[in-house]
Amino acid sequence: MSQPANPVLAEVWRGEILECVHRGTAVVASAEGEVVEAWGDPARVILPRSSYKMIQALPLVESGAADAAGLGAEHLALACASHQGAMVHTGLASRWLAGIGLAERDLRCGAHQPRDAAARHRLHDRGAAPDQFHNNCSGKHCGFLTANRHLGGGPEYVDPEHPLQQAVRLATEEVTGETVSGFAFDGCSAPNFAVSLNGLATAMARFATAGTSFTGARAGAARRLVEAMAAHPVLVGGEGGATTNLIRACAGRAVVKPGAEGVFIAILPQRGLGIALKIDDGNARGSEAAIAALLARHGALERQDPVYAALADAPILNCRGFAHGHLRAAETLLG
Amino acid sequence: MSQPANPVLAEVWRGEILECVHRGTAVVASAEGEVVEAWGDPARVILPRSSYKMIQALPLVESGAADAAGLGAEHLALACASHQGAMVHTGLASRWLAGIGLAERDLRCGAHQPRDAAARHRLHDRGAAPDQFHNNCSGKHCGFLTANRHLGGGPEYVDPEHPLQQAVRLATEEVTGETVSGFAFDGCSAPNFAVSLNGLATAMARFATAGTSFTGARAGAARRLVEAMAAHPVLVGGEGGATTNLIRACAGRAVVKPGAEGVFIAILPQRGLGIALKIDDGNARGSEAAIAALLARHGALERQDPVYAALADAPILNCRGFAHGHLRAAETLLG
Repeated sequence: MSQPANPVLAEVWRGEILECVHRGTAVVASAEGEVVEAWGDPARVILPRSSYKMIQALPLVESGAADAAGLGAEHLALACASHQGAMVHTGLASRWLAGIGLAERDLRCGAHQPRDAAARHRLHDRGAAPDQFHNNCSGKHCGFLTANRHLGGGPEYVDPEHPLQQAVRLATEEVTGETVSGFAFDGCSAPNFAVSLNGLATAMARFATAGTSFTGARAGAARRLVEAMAAHPVLVGGEGGATTNLIRACAGRAVVKPGAEGVFIAILPQRGLGIALKIDDGNARGSEAAIAALLARHGALERQDPVYAALADAPILNCRGFAHGHLRAAETLLG
Repeated sequence: MSQPANPVLAEVWRGEILECVHRGTAVVASAEGEVVEAWGDPARVILPRSSYKMIQALPLVESGAADAAGLGAEHLALACASHQGAMVHTGLASRWLAGIGLAERDLRCGAHQPRDAAARHRLHDRGAAPDQFHNNCSGKHCGFLTANRHLGGGPEYVDPEHPLQQAVRLATEEVTGETVSGFAFDGCSAPNFAVSLNGLATAMARFATAGTSFTGARAGAARRLVEAMAAHPVLVGGEGGATTNLIRACAGRAVVKPGAEGVFIAILPQRGLGIALKIDDGNARGSEAAIAALLARHGALERQDPVYAALADAPILNCRGFAHGHLRAAETLLG
């Protein structure tokens, strides 16, 4: 009783036994919307989750709101981040809101425990609950609030009918070149607009070639967002995480951004390419292995780099430090 | 570019969009080795990981070592556990070893951070590292050491050639009715013998019918292990976890045990059935949804029970408590 399915993009071995597989869809596209290569159906529609925060940040920059608020590259990097809630992230988000006369209570992202262990222990030591600044999306929401203040919208800025979210929807359609087919709410309460993997990869290729793919304010906005992510990798994720390690290792040849449930994108300015992938089961070890393999395949990441090995060709250690398992990107992504 | 694959056993929805799927193989078998029903290929060979700890505990009880050491049902439950490293687990394991004149240094499981939050914070507050008692397999290893002391084997009891592991291998072959085709080392350093899902489900059906399926010491040993797990659900997993919640909710109609990388088994004494399943991608949310659905299908768990809903038909909440997603067992497992 077998069913057709997407190809295997990552494998987990234990000894001689293939213990787990991660299936999925991956697309490499040009700024013209050409599918350069694909695994699975490039027309597959997904929720891009946090992987498209640079699209969600376009209204912030294009509208002039970012400049009016005096935002720098650090703020733009944080607007595109899924951060770990370390002090470097929560401090910047907190100062950002104070600088525009707003406060934590104005956020609509909700709170969750930070992924940063030191931050978690600080909260525990103080007997304190996490606040909304700890939410991995708080930078995006600071960006939403900044854009919203400039646009003069009401306080419930995550309502899908709110003018800010309608601007995000329009930007999504323009940069992907397709009509949004629906949406769902993300974990941070913002609407997340459904796009095809090809549309998402094409949009990322356009960010990679912003000066020629876009005109007017969008060209500068897209370039500034990509440059901000490249310049501040720790703000886009956090120390020790795959996002930060990959952006550092790619050294300007690519910036990357994961999304929940196994989504990952890459923007390759030198090649003028965009990559978008989704692991069917949502597991990050699968999406991280696949994006690392595709970055190497397209010259943005050295296979000799320890960051490549850690994500796409990594021993799995037992509790005494012996390697008894192995995580690797599927053969089909190599070469 | 699609590939044949195992059927979808669990689905993750967000809004109207099917965001993730968990594929896998599941088998319900009788003690005679008959496949009562199956999803995917029942002959698929897997590493059972921690789901077959009751087989690994057979030499401990059958040899008379458990009785010679004065072990009670609590100890046997802990020997079959993947525990959270809470004080109730580490305290019992520590007293157990002291009672047979051994100590933490005699364990070969290695240490890892406990999953129990209170235990993690206690370690943090003391500036202490976890020890081997915190390893989720420490009860199994206390059982190994107890059996080994009785058998008079050397201290490296996790060597696959060690007489204790050879006894485990023989027991595995006898209760599954098949020849072990290989092994790999588990995260706790013990060899983990590869078995087919049908063989594993058949073995679990034999544990469910120990009095008629086994003879001699094995009949009593298997019955005592199942009764110990049923009597001490919190020792088999930990408060709040799926294992403990399921054993409690099944109230004697089934005991269950998960293994790493998406394995789950169930022993159903009233029906005389065994269940074994493996999620291809290793994700626990998939294996937990599938086992809950199969327990309900075979009368061991009420669909009205909150434990069923939490695992197999559960809202996914955003950070402000709104339900925007849904996890559910696949339709094919219901009915």
